[in-house]
Amino acid sequence: MVVREKILDLVVSCFKRHGAKGLDTPAFELKEVLTEKYGEDSGLIYDLQDQGGELLSLRYDLTVPFARYLAMNKVKKMKRYHVGKVWRRESPTIVQGRYREFCQCDFDIAGQFDPMIPDAECLKIMCEILSGLQLGDFLIKVNDRRILDGMFAVCGVPESKFHTICSSIDKLGKMSWKDVRHEMVAKKGLAPEVADRIGDYVQCHGGVSLVEQMFQDPRLSQNKQALEGLGDLKLLFEYVTLFGIAEKISFDLSLARGLDYYTGVVYEAVLLPTPAQAEEEPLNVGSVAAGGRYDGLVGMFDPKGHKVPCVGLSIGVERIFSIVEQKMKTFGEKIRTTETQVFVASPQKNFLQERLKLIAELWDAGIKAELLYKNNPKLLTQLHYCENMGIPLVVIVGEQELKEGVIKLRSVASREEVAIKRENLVAEIQKRLSES
Amino acid sequence: MVVREKILDLVVSCFKRHGAKGLDTPAFELKEVLTEKYGEDSGLIYDLQDQGGELLSLRYDLTVPFARYLAMNKVKKMKRYHVGKVWRRESPTIVQGRYREFCQCDFDIAGQFDPMIPDAECLKIMCEILSGLQLGDFLIKVNDRRILDGMFAVCGVPESKFHTICSSIDKLGKMSWKDVRHEMVAKKGLAPEVADRIGDYVQCHGGVSLVEQMFQDPRLSQNKQALEGLGDLKLLFEYVTLFGIAEKISFDLSLARGLDYYTGVVYEAVLLPTPAQAEEEPLNVGSVAAGGRYDGLVGMFDPKGHKVPCVGLSIGVERIFSIVEQKMKTFGEKIRTTETQVFVASPQKNFLQERLKLIAELWDAGIKAELLYKNNPKLLTQLHYCENMGIPLVVIVGEQELKEGVIKLRSVASREEVAIKRENLVAEIQKRLSES
Repeated sequence: MVVREKILDLVVSCFKRHGAKGLDTPAFELKEVLTEKYGEDSGLIYDLQDQGGELLSLRYDLTVPFARYLAMNKVKKMKRYHVGKVWRRESPTIVQGRYREFCQCDFDIAGQFDPMIPDAECLKIMCEILSGLQLGDFLIKVNDRRILDGMFAVCGVPESKFHTICSSIDKLGKMSWKDVRHEMVAKKGLAPEVADRIGDYVQCHGGVSLVEQMFQDPRLSQNKQALEGLGDLKLLFEYVTLFGIAEKISFDLSLARGLDYYTGVVYEAVLLPTPAQAEEEPLNVGSVAAGGRYDGLVGMFDPKGHKVPCVGLSIGVERIFSIVEQKMKTFGEKIRTTETQVFVASPQKNFLQERLKLIAELWDAGIKAELLYKNNPKLLTQLHYCENMGIPLVVIVGEQELKEGVIKLRSVASREEVAIKRENLVAEIQKRLSES
Repeated sequence: MVVREKILDLVVSCFKRHGAKGLDTPAFELKEVLTEKYGEDSGLIYDLQDQGGELLSLRYDLTVPFARYLAMNKVKKMKRYHVGKVWRRESPTIVQGRYREFCQCDFDIAGQFDPMIPDAECLKIMCEILSGLQLGDFLIKVNDRRILDGMFAVCGVPESKFHTICSSIDKLGKMSWKDVRHEMVAKKGLAPEVADRIGDYVQCHGGVSLVEQMFQDPRLSQNKQALEGLGDLKLLFEYVTLFGIAEKISFDLSLARGLDYYTGVVYEAVLLPTPAQAEEEPLNVGSVAAGGRYDGLVGMFDPKGHKVPCVGLSIGVERIFSIVEQKMKTFGEKIRTTETQVFVASPQKNFLQERLKLIAELWDAGIKAELLYKNNPKLLTQLHYCENMGIPLVVIVGEQELKEGVIKLRSVASREEVAIKRENLVAEIQKRLSES
């Protein structure tokens, strides 16, 4: 929980740095709101039992509820972040960092703006967060749904198969091209030569020069949609260069993103394996952040179909939690689970009253303090507690101290003790805490 | 959301001050975990649809999941807080601050300790939070389930009716004694003279002297359970006196708390109405925090029935949100929904590139910054945006500035502008922000 809190703090403060306001939506939505938004994954939605009233489902992501919110409240422009739980009926495989309940951190920009400025900001945000978390080297793959559709068209994929072939391509991170090709040909009935043409494209990845190259591509350059996508990507590369993050961005024709609602640019950040890792599991580079443009989703919830263009991103915090925890285990880092600064102890019996008076004083001064809930605990037990819990300071009150009007202040690390006048105790503790 | 965040921050920092660690449990529990825990309110539980696998329900509070967690993981001792959503199938009546989804903030101490020390700390925490939130004067009503049961016994309530009569008594905050008496006699079949005997007790409230008085009560003093409860309350008053909060605590024989799982002391904090409010709606003083001791709940989840005594509290943050919002409306306070510190503007066309370079610099320095997502926005539009959003500073770059290697820094409030060397801009902004 402590690690999670630190990671979430960093993510949220980045979202706020980019001017987003927080928004919260309910955990359940009307069942109909969620249907036909998630492609092949729709079976993973949790439904509530019909106990009278509306048919409800637990939210599957934070994007669809956001779009529903915009449409319902006729909001035409908004920059919001949302940190919340989502639920999917998966078989939990903890290794991959996939759970049935997990936390998502989303940032989205809704509104009609000049092209690619908000999109570039989304990439900048992903870079700031991933750099800030110090997870190692990373890369953001970028593509555009229109380029994908154009590619499918010029390769000869029938339009009715665009969605399902897109889902296959989306598996390229986890499966080899050979397996994906097999799925497309054997299971989805694609002609082998069509699959091979796709195969030529999806191995292409690179910087802005690849965008230029695709502009010249004899087949792709004949497709209007693809040209639009390429034009926007070119602009995107110009803006990310100004943001100083161009070297993190890779135009990757294999990037598909499985969800139905994307309409333009899509992106996905992956951690780059160290050479040792790359040898062990060459395919399993997990995505740690992803997103894209979805210009049609809000319109699906508006009675008149009014559109609000949106672009956004989601940080894969569960995966990041696992990675950070794994790292801490490897380096043997120990984390305190509480923040207690001072422990109130007594070496003698019948000092509960004094301990209670003392700790109330500390709490009232805003100092994080604990004591043992025992009438007469042993001093050694009390000091052990501090060592186990990593509490840095102990205040000790006994007969001698009471008589002299002092309190002993002990540093747990150095075991050094000094007597402090009772009335100066809070000030002295605050001084020590501010110095450490 | 901004108000909510501030209130939750204050609550959580108090929980941490008292040495609690954060804990999170899933939104749904096995259906069987929740059954027979909530008395007459069990019908309000949301069930998930049977889609194969286990039968699940959405959590109804955070206490039962905590007890289940302790039993499942064989944890014998823990001080934890939990901020999370819970769900109840209520008809939403916004006036009362009751929703179908709402946030709870719980603090609980589990473990076998000397009597009433953790219980007194729970009362101290409630006082710290309610004082900190500055909601006005408040009072914490305290009673003990054993005193209630003893009172029912000596008044002649049949034991089979303890639970249901307890539920009636629990309504005394919202209903008059006359109505509660009617419910007990007409609907629940209690003899009128028994109801009247209860009536004599439940109008008693006071400080530690009332505890002493009840010790002398000819009927109550004959009941072993009641005497145990009174003994503990006496100790509790001793400890809260040491904590300096005795004047906030009122022993109130009418306090019942509806939930089945309480076994000892129970408490409930209410805001005291101002004289004007008291005249308008004499009964509707809402509870803003509540809790109690539940020594049997963990044992219900342990296969061998091993008990872990617990005591805890829940802050009614939704009600508090409404109160604070209401207050802000009354005083016409305006709250910023974003934290943006600097806006990046240009008075001229074709300066998007410069604006993007500049804002990236600010973001990288940790400064919260925004710009308009337009190639060529008008200066007036940009300045209006700052005024509307309460952004205090604007940096302006134009041809003149570019030529001279400076940036104009404008204070939105004073409209004062100064030219700053480009390389000193970040430092100057940070200086201004730290001063304000």
